[in-house]
Amino acid sequence: MRTVTWSEVDETTRAELLSRGTAAAGPQVTSGVADILEGVREGGDAALQAYAERFDRAPAQSVVVGQEEIARAAAELPEALRTAITDAATNIRTFHRAGMTVSYEVETAPGVICARVVRPIRRVGLYVPAGSAPLPSTALMLGVPAQLAGCPEVVLCTPPGEDGRADPTVLAAAAECGITRVFVTGGAQAIAAMAYGTESVPRCDKIFGPGNAWVTEAKRQVSTAEGGPGIDMPAGPSEVLVIADAGADAEFVAADLLSQAEHGPDSQVLLLTDDDAVAQAVAEQVEEQLAVLPRADIAAKSLGSSAIVVTQDLDEAFAISNDYAPEHLILALREPEDWLPKVERAGSVFLGDWAPETLGDYCSGTNHVLPTAGAARWTGGVNVASFQIAMTVQRVSPEGLAAVGPTAVELSGAEGLIGHQAAVTRRLARASTTGATTATTSGATTATTTGATS
Amino acid sequence: MRTVTWSEVDETTRAELLSRGTAAAGPQVTSGVADILEGVREGGDAALQAYAERFDRAPAQSVVVGQEEIARAAAELPEALRTAITDAATNIRTFHRAGMTVSYEVETAPGVICARVVRPIRRVGLYVPAGSAPLPSTALMLGVPAQLAGCPEVVLCTPPGEDGRADPTVLAAAAECGITRVFVTGGAQAIAAMAYGTESVPRCDKIFGPGNAWVTEAKRQVSTAEGGPGIDMPAGPSEVLVIADAGADAEFVAADLLSQAEHGPDSQVLLLTDDDAVAQAVAEQVEEQLAVLPRADIAAKSLGSSAIVVTQDLDEAFAISNDYAPEHLILALREPEDWLPKVERAGSVFLGDWAPETLGDYCSGTNHVLPTAGAARWTGGVNVASFQIAMTVQRVSPEGLAAVGPTAVELSGAEGLIGHQAAVTRRLARASTTGATTATTSGATTATTTGATS
Repeated sequence: MRTVTWSEVDETTRAELLSRGTAAAGPQVTSGVADILEGVREGGDAALQAYAERFDRAPAQSVVVGQEEIARAAAELPEALRTAITDAATNIRTFHRAGMTVSYEVETAPGVICARVVRPIRRVGLYVPAGSAPLPSTALMLGVPAQLAGCPEVVLCTPPGEDGRADPTVLAAAAECGITRVFVTGGAQAIAAMAYGTESVPRCDKIFGPGNAWVTEAKRQVSTAEGGPGIDMPAGPSEVLVIADAGADAEFVAADLLSQAEHGPDSQVLLLTDDDAVAQAVAEQVEEQLAVLPRADIAAKSLGSSAIVVTQDLDEAFAISNDYAPEHLILALREPEDWLPKVERAGSVFLGDWAPETLGDYCSGTNHVLPTAGAARWTGGVNVASFQIAMTVQRVSPEGLAAVGPTAVELSGAEGLIGHQAAVTRRLARASTTGATTATTSGATTATTTGATS
Repeated sequence: MRTVTWSEVDETTRAELLSRGTAAAGPQVTSGVADILEGVREGGDAALQAYAERFDRAPAQSVVVGQEEIARAAAELPEALRTAITDAATNIRTFHRAGMTVSYEVETAPGVICARVVRPIRRVGLYVPAGSAPLPSTALMLGVPAQLAGCPEVVLCTPPGEDGRADPTVLAAAAECGITRVFVTGGAQAIAAMAYGTESVPRCDKIFGPGNAWVTEAKRQVSTAEGGPGIDMPAGPSEVLVIADAGADAEFVAADLLSQAEHGPDSQVLLLTDDDAVAQAVAEQVEEQLAVLPRADIAAKSLGSSAIVVTQDLDEAFAISNDYAPEHLILALREPEDWLPKVERAGSVFLGDWAPETLGDYCSGTNHVLPTAGAARWTGGVNVASFQIAMTVQRVSPEGLAAVGPTAVELSGAEGLIGHQAAVTRRLARASTTGATTATTSGATTATTTGATS
């Protein structure tokens, strides 16, 4: 890895160090995806099968995975893996359940009670990639919060292997989350199927999950079309930023950098440290560990565009990190808690020497579907609320109308919206002639958590 | 308004009745917006001034509104309007504050503590339209939650009047929310300024607010570009759906339909009722009230594509409403509370005869920036969380690593990600040789609300 000293490089080099590789959605991907979307919209299941043959080299067959196949998938797995799926799901469930959005109501004025009412999204579509390898962990990261939200219909699409089947580990993870509708279809065509619906795949209200440039572009195109489904977030290449102090363990830091670098050649890896010796020791460890990594080719490519940056002090490192807004941020510091308040934005933060990013990827309990490409500037990762709608509700008595109606009359008048005004004045006139009043409830705020529990 | 009986029309007519007018973003708007974005990116403030002359017929002048002008704006207003702004802000504040996302932490396994930490978005951009009239209420609906979230920098853009100045009512509403950075620029160019930054306007992390087809298209383009800002939601033409029973007050229902219809010629208005007499009475009232409406031309156009639908019963009406997923839903029913559980999706719901949509637009306390075009299928409206990032954090002791590490090892192995696995196994090896253990904290979930209070 190349090492630079922040204070010694100019603005251009700094910007280049922090620039992510551009997402691969060039004109070719854009038009290729548009063609696939159109193909699935017109051809339905038959188009999905044709794309599976063409892109996944899978035999033509039904995209539907039978409920029995899903249910018995876990039994095919080694016991240790089966247990790992259950244990990871338990931790994810524990963390996500504790943070669920509550329904609540509050009396804002006498006789005016406003509420937030939380409802599950009716039909959600989960995309679980299987590019270089199937990702059962993603099935858990999406399936668990969907289940906690109480979504009545959860659809999961995952690419076929060369035998045309869905990966059994992915199916077992789906079953762990109570998912019964799985379809073997991948890439942009899977996103199209969930966005438009086919004979087999139901049309979904919101589509979740990571994927390659084609999947990401497909999510962008379907979600920005008029009346299109929602999406969780744009998902670019994965990235990690590590801030290490003089006491950091070079072996651990190097392992963390490599665990990110092995994701893909476009993954971004950054180390910021105020200590030259740590910078050098990590660089050496990276070389050493890279030599024994099965995915060394991928990791080496990713490291080629990555860097170790030596800062004047840790404050400078935090300033750089906050501007960058990393998906994953590891604080390999002696007093990580003390530094946490300095973190203004990041997807997920790992404190200290014993919290490798790997734990967040699988089983600490937090979600691994996180903002990339700087989206942590404005959003967090997937959580239960991502699978819910928060409606607002107002209950107004005649007394309440009398209390807040004049304010609405004044403001609608200022905006020249006399129809808006009339909807209030016609009622005010009637309320005063009938002298109607009703009892109002207490002004206390009450809150309740809603959603399925499991 | 045309009246149809649902059971007597075929699928095509049903689909047509529920289809929203397409958003105006034809190829002309798409390329026109792209040109403006490029113009602002290259020309900065000078481009904003040129567009103001061209589109707003405003004199060329600085886009910056002085802090003094903002501070003294309220004093220019009639006292009743000044009070209305304060009263509306108070109710909005009361409702929004009660629903703020809390930071919390939970021990998911011994020695593994996962937390959600809420942070304000650093720099948010609010767009306040002033097409047919300036909308100070939108300044409140965006400014109050931004303030509650604790956003350190809040930027507001609003189009100039023909005198080149920002509307004083909008400025007074901005001041009420503590906003000190206001710029007079509108349309796609304002969105460009907040997305890219100019000499005067700071580059924002997330952009909020409704607008015409140009503004909406500009938000779409900047937010889907690589590394672009977030946006609140796509904002199409406004819409209301009313469900009325036999006891509904035709005058009130008609007034509510008209208050929506006057928004714009593309607004959508639907009445569903199981009672023929109510359908007829409302149709008559609409004609009568339309005659005295200042914006009758606009409302008449909107009503041309709207309808009264007679259903067999209220259950059928709720099924239609849930498929449509309206921005605003008024339940003009005798027992609205009993029917609320049937509402699966809508932006904001108004219960009973005394809750006109107008109250939600201005001062009940709920937000009026709500999902349109069926987006209520997958999202709610703007709230304090829209102005915040929820980061996750994990604290792991050596004991915690020993507890969950093996699960991560198993799953990363199944996914073929050996670099991920090594980041755990290298630590596990060290943790066991050092015999390190640390005390773990209590497993109880603790929660705290964060954000600014005011």
